Amino acid sequence: MNATNTRLNPAERILMGPGPSTVSSRVLRALAAPTLGHLDPQYVQIMDETCAMLRSVYQTENKMTFPVSGTGMAGMETLAVNLLEPGDEVIVCINGVFGGRMKDVMERCGATVHSVEAPWGEIISDESAAEAVAAHPKAKLFAIVHAETSTGAHQPLVNISKLVHDAGMLFLVDAVTSLGGHELKVDEWGIDAIYSGTQKNLSCPPGLSPVSFSDRALEVMEARKTKVQSWYLDVSMLRNYYMGNAEGGRAYHHTAPINMTYALREALQIILEEGLENRIARHEKWHRRLRSGLEALGLKYVPSHSLHNLNCVYKPDEADDAAVRSALLNDYSIEIGAGLGPMAGKAWRIGLMGHACSQRNVDLVLAALKEVL
Amino acid sequence: MNATNTRLNPAERILMGPGPSTVSSRVLRALAAPTLGHLDPQYVQIMDETCAMLRSVYQTENKMTFPVSGTGMAGMETLAVNLLEPGDEVIVCINGVFGGRMKDVMERCGATVHSVEAPWGEIISDESAAEAVAAHPKAKLFAIVHAETSTGAHQPLVNISKLVHDAGMLFLVDAVTSLGGHELKVDEWGIDAIYSGTQKNLSCPPGLSPVSFSDRALEVMEARKTKVQSWYLDVSMLRNYYMGNAEGGRAYHHTAPINMTYALREALQIILEEGLENRIARHEKWHRRLRSGLEALGLKYVPSHSLHNLNCVYKPDEADDAAVRSALLNDYSIEIGAGLGPMAGKAWRIGLMGHACSQRNVDLVLAALKEVL
Repeated sequence: MNATNTRLNPAERILMGPGPSTVSSRVLRALAAPTLGHLDPQYVQIMDETCAMLRSVYQTENKMTFPVSGTGMAGMETLAVNLLEPGDEVIVCINGVFGGRMKDVMERCGATVHSVEAPWGEIISDESAAEAVAAHPKAKLFAIVHAETSTGAHQPLVNISKLVHDAGMLFLVDAVTSLGGHELKVDEWGIDAIYSGTQKNLSCPPGLSPVSFSDRALEVMEARKTKVQSWYLDVSMLRNYYMGNAEGGRAYHHTAPINMTYALREALQIILEEGLENRIARHEKWHRRLRSGLEALGLKYVPSHSLHNLNCVYKPDEADDAAVRSALLNDYSIEIGAGLGPMAGKAWRIGLMGHACSQRNVDLVLAALKEVL
Repeated sequence: MNATNTRLNPAERILMGPGPSTVSSRVLRALAAPTLGHLDPQYVQIMDETCAMLRSVYQTENKMTFPVSGTGMAGMETLAVNLLEPGDEVIVCINGVFGGRMKDVMERCGATVHSVEAPWGEIISDESAAEAVAAHPKAKLFAIVHAETSTGAHQPLVNISKLVHDAGMLFLVDAVTSLGGHELKVDEWGIDAIYSGTQKNLSCPPGLSPVSFSDRALEVMEARKTKVQSWYLDVSMLRNYYMGNAEGGRAYHHTAPINMTYALREALQIILEEGLENRIARHEKWHRRLRSGLEALGLKYVPSHSLHNLNCVYKPDEADDAAVRSALLNDYSIEIGAGLGPMAGKAWRIGLMGHACSQRNVDLVLAALKEVL
C-alpha cells in the first residue's frame, strides 16, 4: 500500500444528520492550535476552564464534571463501570437503540437489568417508571435517555427524577443529543450521573464525552467493594487528574486528547457567548420552521414528543431511501441520517444541531428535499 | 463561572518529553479539515487509507489493524478485554510503569497474572522469559513492553517471540513509544497483538491508539465463551465497521473521532514519504548526537539498553528537578519529562520523537541544559 500520492481533501458538508454536526471554522481553528503537554500548566488551566464551562452548560455545581477521553459511548460506559458492581440490580428504560445499548453495557458490568419498555418513538410514562421502581425496590440506579437519537423522542425527566429519588436510587441520564440544544438542568432536576458527546449541539468534532457526577454518585463509587473493571475509565484515578490530588498536584493517568480539549473549550465558549437560553430558544425556533416545511411536504414525524434538534420523519413509501440521501449528499453536500435499528429504511433523521441550526439550513434542506422527492 | 473573556492561546512548545511530541503544521492543518459524517463514503475511504498506512508502518498484513477511539491506554485495554476471559492465566513482564499497568488492566479482566520482573532500567532477559513460559505452560498470552516510557529501556523481542510461540501462547506487545521511531516488524517478529499511541513518534496529537491483531488473535477472540466486558472496545462489533460487515457495508458502532483520523492519516503519509527506514535511522542518528552531548554534561543514562527516541538520564544530585524543568519551559518553551513512579525526582526523560527529532532540537536542548544546570 502506498497512499502517499493522494491528498486529504474532505468535502465541506452541511451536516444535518444525527451527528456529527457541522463544526464552525472558529472551533476548527482552535483544534489546530499548537499541542501542549498534558501536564503543562497552560494545559491544566485550559482543562480547568473547559470543566468550568461544562458545569455552566450542564447547569451543575458538580465538582466531578469533565470530558472523558473517548466519544459519547465511552461516556455511557464510564457511568456504568464506575457505578455498578457485579450483582447490582438496575432499571433501564428502552424506547430506542440507545436505551438498549445501556442495557447491554450494564449487563457487561455484571448487573441485572430490569427494563421499562415503550414502543419506538414514544416516551416512557411516569406511570410505567413508577411501576418499575415499585417492582424493583433494590435497584441501585434508574437510567433513561433524554433525547433518543434513534427515534427523535424527547423524554420528560422531572417527575421521574422525583420518584426515583424517593425510592433512594441514583438517577442516570443519557444526554448525548440534548446537551446544548434542549433545556437540561442537572442540579435542579436531580440528575446524579450524566454523559453527552461533543459532536451534536456543541458543534465540536467527535472525540470527547462530557460527564458529570453528583456527590451522591461519588459516594456510591467510594463505597465500592470491587475494582472498576475499566482502568481507562476509572474515576477513582481520573479524579486525581481532573480535580487534583491530595498534594494539590495533577497525577498523570493517561495522555488526554489535548487538541480536542481546545476545540471543546472553544465550542463551550461560543455557547456561553450566545447564552444557553438563547441557544435553546434558537433550536426551538428553527425546529418549528423545519417541522412546518416537512409536514407541508407530507412527511410525518415518528415520535409523539419530538426533539427540536433531531427531526425523525417517516420516509414516504414511494421514495428510495438510499437514492434520496445520496442525491442530497452528492448534489447538495447535505448529510441527513438514515433510520437506525428497526427504523432502517423506514425513516430519515434530520438534525438541526448547534452551528448547523439556522434559517439558512432549514430553508436549504427543505428546498433540496422538495427537489429530490 | 464566566470564562468567555479569555482567549485560547497555547504556547508553541518544543515538546521533548515522553509525549506528546511536537505536531507539525501540516498535521495540524489536516486536523482542522472540515468534519465529515462517520458513514460518509469519503470518510470511510479516509479511514481505509489510514488503516492501510498503519499496516505499512506496523509492517503487517493483519486485516484487523485500526485506530481505537481513545489514547494509548485505551489500546492496551482493547487488547486485554478482547483476548482475556475470567480465569485465564497470562504472563506479564514488568520493568517499569507500563508493564505494571498491563498487570493491573489484565487483572481487571479477571485474569491471573504471573509477573516476570527486572529492575527498573533493565530489560527482560531471554532466560527469565523462558523460565516464566516453562513455569506457566497454561498461560494464554505473554505480554511485554517494547519501549518502556518510564525508564527509556529498549526491549529486544525476537528471541522471546520465538519461545512464546513455541509454547503456543499469544505474543502481545506495547509499542506506544516505539512505533515509527524504532525498528518494529509485526509480522516478521510474530507479534499477535500490539498497540501504540499517536502522540509519540507519529507526531500526531493524542486521541487515537493504533492496534493490530493477527489472525491467530482473532481466532482466540472468536472462540470466547463470554462477552467482552467493554462495549466501547469490543472488536467483535468494531470489525463490522473497520473491516465491513457481511453485506459489504459499514455497520455503525460508535461515532469515530473524525478529525483525529485526518491528523493520523496525514502523520502516516508524512512517515511513508520520508520512508520508514530513513525515519528510524534519523532517530538513531540524533539520539547519538544527544547522547554524546548529555554525557559530556556529566549526565548518566538510566537504562542499560536505551531507546533512541526517549533518553532517560539521572538528574544530578545538586540540580533542583522542578526548577530546571521550569526554566526550560519558561525561558526556552522546551518541555522535557520528569521521572515517573519510583524515578520521580530522580530522572529526566528527554524525547526525540518524530517531527521533534532534529539536529536543531538536539543542539538547542543541550545548549539550554548547559545554561540551566
